[in-house]
Amino acid sequence: MTLPSIQYLLDLSGTAFFAISGALVANQKSKPDWFGVTFIGFITSIGGSSIRDILLGSYPLSWVADPNKVYVIIISIVFTSLFFNLFLKMKKTFFIFDSLGIAMFTILGTEKAMMMHLSPLIAAIMGMFSAIMGGVMRDVLTNEIPVIFRKEIYASACLLGALVYLLLNYFNFSRNICLIVSVAVIFLVRVIAVKYKLSLPHFKRE
Amino acid sequence: MTLPSIQYLLDLSGTAFFAISGALVANQKSKPDWFGVTFIGFITSIGGSSIRDILLGSYPLSWVADPNKVYVIIISIVFTSLFFNLFLKMKKTFFIFDSLGIAMFTILGTEKAMMMHLSPLIAAIMGMFSAIMGGVMRDVLTNEIPVIFRKEIYASACLLGALVYLLLNYFNFSRNICLIVSVAVIFLVRVIAVKYKLSLPHFKRE
Amino acid sequence: MTLPSIQYLLDLSGTAFFAISGALVANQKSKPDWFGVTFIGFITSIGGSSIRDILLGSYPLSWVADPNKVYVIIISIVFTSLFFNLFLKMKKTFFIFDSLGIAMFTILGTEKAMMMHLSPLIAAIMGMFSAIMGGVMRDVLTNEIPVIFRKEIYASACLLGALVYLLLNYFNFSRNICLIVSVAVIFLVRVIAVKYKLSLPHFKRE
Repeated sequence: MTLPSIQYLLDLSGTAFFAISGALVANQKSKPDWFGVTFIGFITSIGGSSIRDILLGSYPLSWVADPNKVYVIIISIVFTSLFFNLFLKMKKTFFIFDSLGIAMFTILGTEKAMMMHLSPLIAAIMGMFSAIMGGVMRDVLTNEIPVIFRKEIYASACLLGALVYLLLNYFNFSRNICLIVSVAVIFLVRVIAVKYKLSLPHFKRE
Repeated sequence: MTLPSIQYLLDLSGTAFFAISGALVANQKSKPDWFGVTFIGFITSIGGSSIRDILLGSYPLSWVADPNKVYVIIISIVFTSLFFNLFLKMKKTFFIFDSLGIAMFTILGTEKAMMMHLSPLIAAIMGMFSAIMGGVMRDVLTNEIPVIFRKEIYASACLLGALVYLLLNYFNFSRNICLIVSVAVIFLVRVIAVKYKLSLPHFKRE
Repeated sequence: MTLPSIQYLLDLSGTAFFAISGALVANQKSKPDWFGVTFIGFITSIGGSSIRDILLGSYPLSWVADPNKVYVIIISIVFTSLFFNLFLKMKKTFFIFDSLGIAMFTILGTEKAMMMHLSPLIAAIMGMFSAIMGGVMRDVLTNEIPVIFRKEIYASACLLGALVYLLLNYFNFSRNICLIVSVAVIFLVRVIAVKYKLSLPHFKRE
């Protein structure tokens, strides 16, 4: 198995976990039907990379060119229905996978922007957008408080990890080192922040 | 009159009906002014095809290249104001036209994606997006429960019709047959679902 | 100093004022952290021109090609924190700068669309979108009543100014005359409307 295919499998598994988490969140709304849950799972899953690619003008969008992603989403929703009670009990496991998912999506998104020779700061923002914008759209569509306003450290962990990636890359570390360290940073910052209820300081009180 | 111009007239009439329905929905909010109603009518009308074309990277967007669509929207809003009470009484007529509108927009959107040699599943999703995304944006902007979460069968009828179109197309039926049958499927599924209060099954209860 | 660099400085100062106003609005939500406030300031600031350029298919987006805009936004948010109480007291000053900002963004956006040889009506809409869509996205993300539904004359002043620009341009007035008069129209209409509580007529009551 070659490196690109590992990356592809990671991308597909991230797609699956995002679809499942989107479906679980959507289902908390007042009795949505199958279609609504699938729609929200779909938007959650492909929203971030779509926003990134639209902002970059990088066509075709990955899911438009590759229907496998859509099949993965549909299968994930079916699994979510079949193993619904099991999935609800697996909240900790999902938290782990979700944290890994946003970490991977951030770094893959950052790399994509870097390959377009953009400024590192812009590449880091694009990486963060890849990871969080699906969840932001999910929240807007379900009238929830957007994920970026929750107390948890979430998007800021992604941005930090993207900056770590770019720093390591600047000092010519190998791609594998850059990838592994920066994904670990995002994952650990998020897990530690949730475990110890760390949060960023408030802005200002009026 | 040639076939393309019939298609163009159908497109313009769909644009008009979407603008009117957008304006009527927007007007239910707390006393919006003329500008707000026109803005929402505009977004409702051109939102779906714009989202489709942005996702496809297909430029220029149709209303950007063709100001006639914008004139049609403005005239539709003026008509909505002049014949407001009449239009409110014509709810059934509008339901019929709206159902025809989403049916046509779905199939024209599906055809556009097929011409770009995309996977049939992706083309069906693009067709559905053409029909529903204007309404989704209208709902997000007016803080309504998004149309995709309502009990009515709406987006799912569009997706079904798009798949019927692609199936008929796969078996080499003529374009006219594909068009007429798939538009009829969307229209009838929607009308029958509303008349008999049919809905899709709920996803899961926690 | 050449004319392009004056335009660039105006663009950067508009970016700064939009970021500050976005941050101040975001901070009114329930105790957002630094990241959430910065994120909303960022979206408010670059949202309008991004929507315009995505609708036009005009790549790269200005902030993607030019990280200076992002630095200006970050510095603006830091200033908003440092001089928070001062900024809150300067509401009138901010109103003046905000009105100048939307006026400039409208006309620069209109000019950009005109350079792509679009219909004047479409160019005016693109100019208005440049000015208001950042605020619309800010409102959607913070669950506020969108700016387009507020009683104030806001987006309609932008559209009027864009049309004035196009009219003067049609009669071959110099670019400076077109710019100054149309910016003045937007600024004055907005200031007078707020001062005398003028608003557009309601659409219809049911």
